[in-house]
Amino acid sequence: MAGNTFGKCFRLTTFGESHGAAIGGTVDGCPAGLPLDPIAVQHELDRRRPGSTPLGTARTEGDRVEWLSGLLPAPDRPGHLITLGTPIGFIIRNHDHRSTDYDHLKEVYRPGHADLAWERKYGVRDHRGGGRSSARETACRVVGGAIARQLLATAGVRVQAYVRQVGEAVMPERDDLPLAAAWDHPVRCPDPEAAAHMARLIEQARAEGDSLGGVVACRVHGVPAGWGEPVFDRLDADLARAMLSINASKGFQMGSGYRAAAMRGSAHNDPIAPGPATGATNSGGTLGGISTGDLLHFDVAFKPPSTIAKAQRTIDRQGRPVVLEARGRHDPCVAPRAVPIVEAMACLVLADHMLRQRSARV
Amino acid sequence: MAGNTFGKCFRLTTFGESHGAAIGGTVDGCPAGLPLDPIAVQHELDRRRPGSTPLGTARTEGDRVEWLSGLLPAPDRPGHLITLGTPIGFIIRNHDHRSTDYDHLKEVYRPGHADLAWERKYGVRDHRGGGRSSARETACRVVGGAIARQLLATAGVRVQAYVRQVGEAVMPERDDLPLAAAWDHPVRCPDPEAAAHMARLIEQARAEGDSLGGVVACRVHGVPAGWGEPVFDRLDADLARAMLSINASKGFQMGSGYRAAAMRGSAHNDPIAPGPATGATNSGGTLGGISTGDLLHFDVAFKPPSTIAKAQRTIDRQGRPVVLEARGRHDPCVAPRAVPIVEAMACLVLADHMLRQRSARV
Amino acid sequence: MAGNTFGKCFRLTTFGESHGAAIGGTVDGCPAGLPLDPIAVQHELDRRRPGSTPLGTARTEGDRVEWLSGLLPAPDRPGHLITLGTPIGFIIRNHDHRSTDYDHLKEVYRPGHADLAWERKYGVRDHRGGGRSSARETACRVVGGAIARQLLATAGVRVQAYVRQVGEAVMPERDDLPLAAAWDHPVRCPDPEAAAHMARLIEQARAEGDSLGGVVACRVHGVPAGWGEPVFDRLDADLARAMLSINASKGFQMGSGYRAAAMRGSAHNDPIAPGPATGATNSGGTLGGISTGDLLHFDVAFKPPSTIAKAQRTIDRQGRPVVLEARGRHDPCVAPRAVPIVEAMACLVLADHMLRQRSARV
Amino acid sequence: MAGNTFGKCFRLTTFGESHGAAIGGTVDGCPAGLPLDPIAVQHELDRRRPGSTPLGTARTEGDRVEWLSGLLPAPDRPGHLITLGTPIGFIIRNHDHRSTDYDHLKEVYRPGHADLAWERKYGVRDHRGGGRSSARETACRVVGGAIARQLLATAGVRVQAYVRQVGEAVMPERDDLPLAAAWDHPVRCPDPEAAAHMARLIEQARAEGDSLGGVVACRVHGVPAGWGEPVFDRLDADLARAMLSINASKGFQMGSGYRAAAMRGSAHNDPIAPGPATGATNSGGTLGGISTGDLLHFDVAFKPPSTIAKAQRTIDRQGRPVVLEARGRHDPCVAPRAVPIVEAMACLVLADHMLRQRSARV
Repeated sequence: MAGNTFGKCFRLTTFGESHGAAIGGTVDGCPAGLPLDPIAVQHELDRRRPGSTPLGTARTEGDRVEWLSGLLPAPDRPGHLITLGTPIGFIIRNHDHRSTDYDHLKEVYRPGHADLAWERKYGVRDHRGGGRSSARETACRVVGGAIARQLLATAGVRVQAYVRQVGEAVMPERDDLPLAAAWDHPVRCPDPEAAAHMARLIEQARAEGDSLGGVVACRVHGVPAGWGEPVFDRLDADLARAMLSINASKGFQMGSGYRAAAMRGSAHNDPIAPGPATGATNSGGTLGGISTGDLLHFDVAFKPPSTIAKAQRTIDRQGRPVVLEARGRHDPCVAPRAVPIVEAMACLVLADHMLRQRSARV
Repeated sequence: MAGNTFGKCFRLTTFGESHGAAIGGTVDGCPAGLPLDPIAVQHELDRRRPGSTPLGTARTEGDRVEWLSGLLPAPDRPGHLITLGTPIGFIIRNHDHRSTDYDHLKEVYRPGHADLAWERKYGVRDHRGGGRSSARETACRVVGGAIARQLLATAGVRVQAYVRQVGEAVMPERDDLPLAAAWDHPVRCPDPEAAAHMARLIEQARAEGDSLGGVVACRVHGVPAGWGEPVFDRLDADLARAMLSINASKGFQMGSGYRAAAMRGSAHNDPIAPGPATGATNSGGTLGGISTGDLLHFDVAFKPPSTIAKAQRTIDRQGRPVVLEARGRHDPCVAPRAVPIVEAMACLVLADHMLRQRSARV
Repeated sequence: MAGNTFGKCFRLTTFGESHGAAIGGTVDGCPAGLPLDPIAVQHELDRRRPGSTPLGTARTEGDRVEWLSGLLPAPDRPGHLITLGTPIGFIIRNHDHRSTDYDHLKEVYRPGHADLAWERKYGVRDHRGGGRSSARETACRVVGGAIARQLLATAGVRVQAYVRQVGEAVMPERDDLPLAAAWDHPVRCPDPEAAAHMARLIEQARAEGDSLGGVVACRVHGVPAGWGEPVFDRLDADLARAMLSINASKGFQMGSGYRAAAMRGSAHNDPIAPGPATGATNSGGTLGGISTGDLLHFDVAFKPPSTIAKAQRTIDRQGRPVVLEARGRHDPCVAPRAVPIVEAMACLVLADHMLRQRSARV
Repeated sequence: MAGNTFGKCFRLTTFGESHGAAIGGTVDGCPAGLPLDPIAVQHELDRRRPGSTPLGTARTEGDRVEWLSGLLPAPDRPGHLITLGTPIGFIIRNHDHRSTDYDHLKEVYRPGHADLAWERKYGVRDHRGGGRSSARETACRVVGGAIARQLLATAGVRVQAYVRQVGEAVMPERDDLPLAAAWDHPVRCPDPEAAAHMARLIEQARAEGDSLGGVVACRVHGVPAGWGEPVFDRLDADLARAMLSINASKGFQMGSGYRAAAMRGSAHNDPIAPGPATGATNSGGTLGGISTGDLLHFDVAFKPPSTIAKAQRTIDRQGRPVVLEARGRHDPCVAPRAVPIVEAMACLVLADHMLRQRSARV
C-alpha cells in the first residue's frame, strides 16, 4: 500500500520522477468558492526553484505550474481563479533533465541516497536523478501548499519559515524576529549577521566539494485554539510526520523540543494569563495535540546533502566495493531551499486540520 | 474528523477516558493464524503501569486486559491464542479513579495540560484526570503494540527502548549497549552509572515538588531493507508522527538527528560496505524513508510532567487569574514509564509497514 | 487490509464474534455537544433483537448496550448523555450462546453460508454460530446507527424503512404510506393487507422447514440538497455499499432502479418545478450522486436465509460429499429484522455525509 | 471531505472537467515490476470513446492517454513498460469541446442532470458539458481499470461485461454465453437476436428525440476464493459502490439479486460440491462478502440518458419555470458505452482486493 497522498480532508496526491515527462498532483478537498491567485502559487514555486539563490545549485529548472482542472476564472476578481470544489489537477513539465549526467549511477549506489533501499524495496528503479526519491518531487508539495496557504489566509493564518542554523552557525532567537526579511538574504535567515556567517560556511563547503546540514524554523501566526485531533492525529504529530517526510530531514521539535528534556516543570509550564496570546512558548502552541491559540512554532533538522564531490566508498549492483566520485550540480546546503517546502508542508497540515475542526462540534 | 485510529493495514482504534467505565481498543488487520501469547501482552501492560517503578506515581492501576474477540485458543500451543483475522477487541476496566481528587480542577485550567485547548476545541470536557487527554489512554497503545510486537517477531524484528537522558543526566551512547539490562533499573537506563545519576535527579525533583524532562531512545534490530512508503508515508515520517502522538513528547530525531545540522556530508554519509549491516549509522537505518536493513534507531524528547506541587499562575473558566496548587499523585519524570509506550508505537508503525510492503511488488 | 471500519468522518469500527465474550464498537467522529438519549439507542437495539417479532427466531438475546466512553451525563437534560467529541466505545455481552448447537458444524460447510469462503480466506475460523460472519454483528451497526440518527435529527433528517416484499407478496407502493404503522405489524409492512399475506407466507415456509427472501425499502425525509461527494463517494454509491454490506443482501436500487432500464428519458426525467420538494421521484433523491432535497428512497433485496431444516448437499473439511440437516433456531425470513439494520446503515451513511458537507464550501 | 479517490491498496485518484484543459488521474499502489502494455490500455480507452459505436453520439473524442510517471520501458519486453511501484500519473487532453454548445445551459437546470444539486452543494459550477459531473470523467476510470486488469491477469482473472437489456429487450441468459462476441455488435450484446432487437429500439428512440435505459451484466472468471474484507468492505459491497458511482446507474444486483426476494432457501442455496467451480450461481460468487472461487457475476441498471430532444419543464437560476429543449450530441442509450466502464470499475475493485488479501494471513 503506497503512500503518495497527504492529508485527510484537504488532500494532496502527487506523482512524478525527476527525469520523466512531468511531475504533478491533485488537490482534493479544497472547498469550493476560494478565490485563488495563480501568480502567488507560481511565486511559491519560484521560491523553491534550484537557482533561486546564488548559494544553491546552478540548475535553473524554471518550473511552470500548468492548471488542468478544478478552477474557473473568478467572475469578480480579475486575474484570480475560483475553486469549484472538484479536484485541482496540475502538472509541471520536466525540462532540464540531462539524463546522461546520471549514466554512471546506473550500476552503483550513492552513499546517503535512497538508491539501494529503493532497489531492495521495489526491485526496479529509475536511476536518473534519483527518480521519485529526488527532491524535485517537493515542487508538487509547494503547489499544494500554496493552495492551502490561500485557504488558511481566509482564516487569518500566516506561515513563515526561516533558516535558524547552517553548520555551526546558529542564529540567536528572539520574539521580534523580522521574519519578512528572511527572504532578502540568500540563506533565508532574518538575522543579517548570522546570515552572513552561514553564507561563508556554505561557500567554504562548496569550495571543498563538501556539504553542510542546517535547521529550518517555522512560525505560524493566527491559528485559533482547537485545531488538532487527539489522540493520534495531534497537530504536532501531523506536523512531525509532514516535516520528516521532506527529503533530508532528520529531526523535528515543537516549541522547547529537546531543551525540554533538561528542564523542570516549574520552568517549562507556560503560565496561563488572561488576554490574548503573545509570543513563543515552551509548548510551541499546542497542548494535548490541540492548538492553544498561541504562536505555533517548531523546527526541522536537515542533514548535509548526500551528493558531494569527494570520493566515497560504496558498492555496485554486483555487491563489489567501488569508490564513487559524484558529478552533477547540487546544493551544498539544503536549508535555504527547504524553507518554502517546510512552509508548504505546514500549510497542508494546517488546512487539513482547519477543515477537520469543522466537524468537531454539533 | 476525529483521529483515534492509527495505521493503515495494521490498525489500532482506541477509546476511553481516564475516569470512565473502561478504556479499550480494536486491532483491525492483524493477519489470521498468528499465535498470540496473552501473558506477554499483559506483561507489556504491567511494564507501563503506574507504580511499576518506585520512581513513579504511587497509583497502582493493576490494569488487566480483557479480550473480547478475534481470538480462539490455539489448537496446538497451550496457553496461546490464535488470531482469526477478525478485529481483536479488548477493554481495560478503570478502577483506581478517585474522581474527587479532581473536583478542584473543574473550574480551572492547569498550565501545561490540555484543559483549556480541549475546552476550546470541543466546548465540553471530562475534567476528571484529564479525561481522554490523560496518559492513561496509552495503555491501549501498549496492548495494540504488544500484538504488533508478536507479529514482528515472526519476521525477526526486535524493538527495545531505554532512557537516554533525565534532566541534565545524559547517558554516553555506544554500540554494545546492554539493552536487556535497561529494565533492571527503575529509570530504564542500561548504563548503571548514568541510571544512578538520573534516579538521584528524579528523587530530588520529587522532593522539591517539581518534575523533570527526559529522552527515550529506541533501537530496532532485524528490520529488512524495503519497509516504508515514499513519498509521504516514509518509515521515519510515520515514526515521527507516532512518537509525537505520545503525551508530553516534544521532539523526534532519526539517527544523527539534530547533530546532522552541524555536520558535513563527507562525515555524515554512511559508507556502503559489502556484507551484513552492523551498528548505528548516521542515517538511523532509513534512506529516502525506506529501511536500509541497518539498525533502526531514533529518540524522543519528553517534557517535564506538567503536574507539579508548586504554585502556578493560571485562569479559571470565567477568565479570572488564579493560583493553582496541584494535588494528586503523579510522576516526577515521564521518561521511564514512556519506554514501553515508545516501544509500542514503534511496533505499531513497523507492523503496519511490514504488511504494506507485501504489496510493493508483483 | 481488513475492513471493519465504516465511514470517513463519522466512523464506526466494530468487533466481535457471535459466540465470543462480547461484540462491540467505537464511534469516532461524532461531534461534541450532541445530547444523546441512551434509551432511544437501546430501543433501536431491541427492535433488531431476535424474538422481537413472533415471526422470527425463538432466541431472545436481550442485548444490553454498555457505554464505556465518550459520554458524560448531560448537565441540563436529565436522562440524557452528552457527547464529548471523543470516541464512543460500547460493548454488548454475548449471553445466549449455546455453542454446542454448533458442534456438528465444525467439520462441514453450510451451503449459502460463508463457512468455506471464510476458511479459504483466513485458514482459520470460529465455527460457532458463524463467528464474525453471523448477523449478530449487525447489533453494533444498530448502536452506531442510533447515535447517527440522533445527530441527523438535529438537521431534521428522518430515516424510515419497511418491508416491501416477502416471497411473492409485494406491497403496492404509494406516496402517502403510513410508515409509522409499519412497526405495528410483525412483518414491518405498513400495508395491513400485504402484511397479512407476508405473514402467511412466512409461517408456511417455517412450517415446511424452508425460508423466504424479501425486499426492504427505505425513505429518508429532510435531507437537504448537497450531500454526497462525487465522483466516487456519491451518496447513492455509499448507500449501495452500506446495504450490500448487510448479511444476506443481494441487490440495491435507488429510486426507479431496475425499472429505469425499461423506461424512456422523457418518462424518467423528473421535471424540476419551483417550490419545495414533494414525494418520490424516479431519481430517488440524488442526481450526480448528490442529494437534491427531494425524498431519498431506495430498496434492498435480501435472499432467503441459508439455514433451513431441509437436507442439503455439501462437503466436509476433507472435501467429501455429505448431506447436512441443519438444527438451531433461525429466522424463516430476514426482511422484518433487517428493517432496523437498513435504517442504521442509512443513518451511518447520512451522518457521514452531513459532516463531510461541512467542508464543501469556503 | 471530497471523494475523488477509489480503492485502499490499489488506488485511483481522478480529476478533470469535461471542458477544461485535461482530465487525468493517478494510480497509486500498483505493485512494482508489472509489465504494462500501453497499447492495451489505449485500446480500452478507444472502446469507451463516444463514436466507438454507430449507435452512440456523433462526438469523436479521440482520447489519447499521455503517461507522465511511474513507468519505464520494460528492459526485456519490447513495446511494454514496467511499473516502478511509484504513482502512475496520466492525463487525457480535452479536444472536442464546443463550449458554446452549452451557453444556453448557464442559466437553466437540466432535468435528470446534476446541475441544480451541484450548484446547491458547491455554490459554483462549470456548466459546460456538465463539468465534473459529465461522463467524460469515466475515461480516467477506464485507464485506471486497464492497469488493474493487467495486474489481475497475472493472477488469471478475466473481467467481461455485456449488455443484457435495452429498454424492453432482454437477452435470455445462459451459462455458455459467447462473451467474446459481445463486442462485435454495436450494442455489445452477445446474443445476435437480442442485439438486433436492442439496436432497433435505440434507433427508434433516437428518431423520436428520446432515450432508453438498459442493464449491463458482468462476469469475472478466475477469482480465487478468499477475496473480500468483512464486515464492511465485502467484495459485493465494494462492487455495489463501484457500480453505483458510475454516471446514470440506478441499481446493482449480485447473482440472483432481486429474484432472490421471491425465492425459497431450498432453491436459492447453491449446493457445495467437491471439485472445481462451474458456472453461474445464485450467490453470484461471494458468500459473506468473500469470493468463493466460483464465477463472479452481477449486473447494473442504467437509466435512460437525461439529455433528450423533447421539451421539458424546469426552472432557471432565478427559480422561474422555463421549458428546455436540449441541443448537443448525446447517446440515446448509455448501456453499450457503459460496458468498458463497468469492466474498469470491476477491475479496480478486484485489484484492490487482490492486494488486500496479501495481508490476510501470517
